[in-house]
Amino acid sequence: MLPYKSMIKLDSNSRMPIYVQLANGIIKEISCGNLVPGLKLPGSRTLANHFEVHRKTIIATYEELEAQGWIETVPAKGSFVSKKMPVTKAQSFNVQKREIISPLQTSLFFIKKRFSEDVNEMVPKFTTFKYQFDDGVPDLRLAPIHVLARQYKSVLNSKLAAKKLNYTHDLKGNISLRKELAKYLSETRSINVTTENIMIVRGSIMGFYLLFQIILEKGSNVIVGETNFKAANEIMKNAGGKLITVPVDGQGIDVERVAEICKKKKIRAIYIVPHHHHPTTVSLSAERRMKLLQLAERYKFAIIEDDYDYDFHYESSPILPLASSDRVGVVSYVGSFSKSIAPAFRIGFVVAPEDLIDEMSKLRRFVDRQGDVLLEQAIAMMLEEGEVRRHMRKALKTYHQRRDFFCDLLQRELGDFVEFKKPDGGLAVWTKFDKKINMTKLSEAAAAQNLYIADSRRYDPIGKELNSTRLGFASMNENEMRAAMKILKRGIKN
Amino acid sequence: MLPYKSMIKLDSNSRMPIYVQLANGIIKEISCGNLVPGLKLPGSRTLANHFEVHRKTIIATYEELEAQGWIETVPAKGSFVSKKMPVTKAQSFNVQKREIISPLQTSLFFIKKRFSEDVNEMVPKFTTFKYQFDDGVPDLRLAPIHVLARQYKSVLNSKLAAKKLNYTHDLKGNISLRKELAKYLSETRSINVTTENIMIVRGSIMGFYLLFQIILEKGSNVIVGETNFKAANEIMKNAGGKLITVPVDGQGIDVERVAEICKKKKIRAIYIVPHHHHPTTVSLSAERRMKLLQLAERYKFAIIEDDYDYDFHYESSPILPLASSDRVGVVSYVGSFSKSIAPAFRIGFVVAPEDLIDEMSKLRRFVDRQGDVLLEQAIAMMLEEGEVRRHMRKALKTYHQRRDFFCDLLQRELGDFVEFKKPDGGLAVWTKFDKKINMTKLSEAAAAQNLYIADSRRYDPIGKELNSTRLGFASMNENEMRAAMKILKRGIKN
Repeated sequence: MLPYKSMIKLDSNSRMPIYVQLANGIIKEISCGNLVPGLKLPGSRTLANHFEVHRKTIIATYEELEAQGWIETVPAKGSFVSKKMPVTKAQSFNVQKREIISPLQTSLFFIKKRFSEDVNEMVPKFTTFKYQFDDGVPDLRLAPIHVLARQYKSVLNSKLAAKKLNYTHDLKGNISLRKELAKYLSETRSINVTTENIMIVRGSIMGFYLLFQIILEKGSNVIVGETNFKAANEIMKNAGGKLITVPVDGQGIDVERVAEICKKKKIRAIYIVPHHHHPTTVSLSAERRMKLLQLAERYKFAIIEDDYDYDFHYESSPILPLASSDRVGVVSYVGSFSKSIAPAFRIGFVVAPEDLIDEMSKLRRFVDRQGDVLLEQAIAMMLEEGEVRRHMRKALKTYHQRRDFFCDLLQRELGDFVEFKKPDGGLAVWTKFDKKINMTKLSEAAAAQNLYIADSRRYDPIGKELNSTRLGFASMNENEMRAAMKILKRGIKN
Repeated sequence: MLPYKSMIKLDSNSRMPIYVQLANGIIKEISCGNLVPGLKLPGSRTLANHFEVHRKTIIATYEELEAQGWIETVPAKGSFVSKKMPVTKAQSFNVQKREIISPLQTSLFFIKKRFSEDVNEMVPKFTTFKYQFDDGVPDLRLAPIHVLARQYKSVLNSKLAAKKLNYTHDLKGNISLRKELAKYLSETRSINVTTENIMIVRGSIMGFYLLFQIILEKGSNVIVGETNFKAANEIMKNAGGKLITVPVDGQGIDVERVAEICKKKKIRAIYIVPHHHHPTTVSLSAERRMKLLQLAERYKFAIIEDDYDYDFHYESSPILPLASSDRVGVVSYVGSFSKSIAPAFRIGFVVAPEDLIDEMSKLRRFVDRQGDVLLEQAIAMMLEEGEVRRHMRKALKTYHQRRDFFCDLLQRELGDFVEFKKPDGGLAVWTKFDKKINMTKLSEAAAAQNLYIADSRRYDPIGKELNSTRLGFASMNENEMRAAMKILKRGIKN
């Protein structure tokens, strides 16, 4: 008899019944070629003794194997591995060795698209640090979680819950949320659209992904700032886009450069963050806004307007998005609740011409099937009851104070080593470090003291040696900022 | 003075302050070219009278406009539209007409990829009907929502909640869920892998999307059944795949045909549902399974194994997935909790070689940034406490009874008009209707009586005139099934 016991390991702690474990073990041995077609299996009594189990267990095993077609039982002769099975080259009986090959860890010959290691830098582990100068994340201790949880619960308890738990046919997103959003966008930023111009997505990243997949084809020219939100650049490249960069100054991206490029090349789209450019936080000036809209109309390119932190503006009112002045449908506008509620709740939205929204929603059918219907409904209710505004009003006051406190602190403690402009809005300060400071080393020294600070590479897509980074201030209270600054100062002085 | 009041409509019910409404109105008029660069704006007193608002409101408006760079105020001379603005061709003063052009509804010149209208058929509106023969959806009245809600709440209330509300760096998904899943997959289906072989996705659709985006390039050959899950076909095509179809019979897909194709062409991947083929519900026979694995090893193609309803098997134990016999890493296995918990909770998983999982997780960074961390944690806790198994045990008993009841009912009531085989598992019966029955008409007649039944086209990707459909039985109780059958019978007899 073959060494079945060393081939098939039973686990008495497993919740899988012993007879199923045995059957599965025998199936694997047949698959591996150790039990060949036509082989006679031991009698049930023999195998029961061998494994020290009840004979009925072996009978159940054989019945299961026969039902699945792996073995054939011939009355009065016994059980045989099915002769219909193809012959396989046997592997070693050495279980130890086999386990190394089997668990799906071999390198693959069919990966056709590989991303660079850079991608991992785009998912920094800042939450694992005690203090963090993040990219500009809100303080989640202030997040309106109890409000969201209450609304969520009432959605689950509602009469329609069972319907809402099913697949939805509304690929553009929950209609209540789209209605509330149409109202909200009109009231907060003068964008007047219908529900059919709005698609709810899982955060603004998904908005860009769907947009660029539809708008770009291989080799399409896209204009971006020399400094730019790196993830957006990757999304455009993934969709086939060829990136053309233009300088960014204190007024935002250089629109005159855009005009020159348009004269020479067919441009498909431009990606901008006019409200607070990422990473430098500057606002696009009024005349550049108008000029850009005119260029888009004349040369027929799409403006993808990223407005991820519209709500966070401290000086005068937030500036109106380009989308609010769009006369012909050249602007696609992407916003998000990730920062106003919490990043874990992936709710963003795209506002665009209806036919573009239609195509995006069809693509979504194949990306994630549908959005989070229950969460969307809960957020619709929060909007309707004014809870998002109420929270934002409170949060904005806190972040305004923190910005002022932080900028004073930064000037006082590191004024000799850094340059920065107090930002009009947003949750981070764009900070240029003295050339003598090696930011990679500084970042490492800080990490050793439990402080996260991104080094310059994170914000420098085309390698301009900016020696700059974003110092997110919003997620820390004043004591934490002081402690973080102390660590940073020590890192600089050493 | 220009007719400002007819150009700018103030809304006293809006939550946007009047001075901001006025500023936004003026910005739009500048953008549209109705207020030209250098134009002198009315004095604050004059405009205040014109709009019947307080003079301070107009002063605030002008301050706002100046802060944003739209106007310039010259002491003792007044306020002027900034001369830096580019000149724009003016639009009509007629507000009515303007509103038609402005709200982002114009047709676009930059949509580069269009989906066919078929996509809308892949999102049927069955939840809007009183009775439905759906594709095989569980009864959501039985969904373990109170259990999930309890776990979800305890995640939100936990000390670590604030960290979990932030961005995560774990693109493969919550590590607790991946650990529980590794255990669960080993115990329920003999797939032995580490957490690094697992990626949590938003339902199996997203698993296929990410997999095929990484595995396929333009023109890659992919084998699928002649009848097949249509959405999967679309996902493969979207990733560049060229589909080659093979027949499907009572033993599953024709593996001999696969072998013949491999001799002639380079095949990149095969997509199969070996447990219960979609739509026909047949299981792939044991010898075909072995043969297929051998072919994949020899010809180096990827097997994408869709096991969306592993948990729903009534006769003997569920058949082990191909992934459990994979020796070299050719199988990528995709499963889901959408059917065992509820479709609205988008939790699926991919089990694959580690380097493939790595690439998929990098792509996800640009698709939706990250998964639903809180939900993943809640489901990890449900798995850990055995709540998923407990629910499935109960649900399976109900669905087993419903299958038996439904198949009896179908035979008794429509035996003369349909052919079907009682399925060993799954939540739907693949049913062939007599040729004389026009299924499109039948589907319409049923819809008029509040019963959803898909016509044959939904399951017939290559137009074989199957005159067959899936009759999902699980979402209806016995009374509902009787009522639905009555409607269907009436539709056939008329």
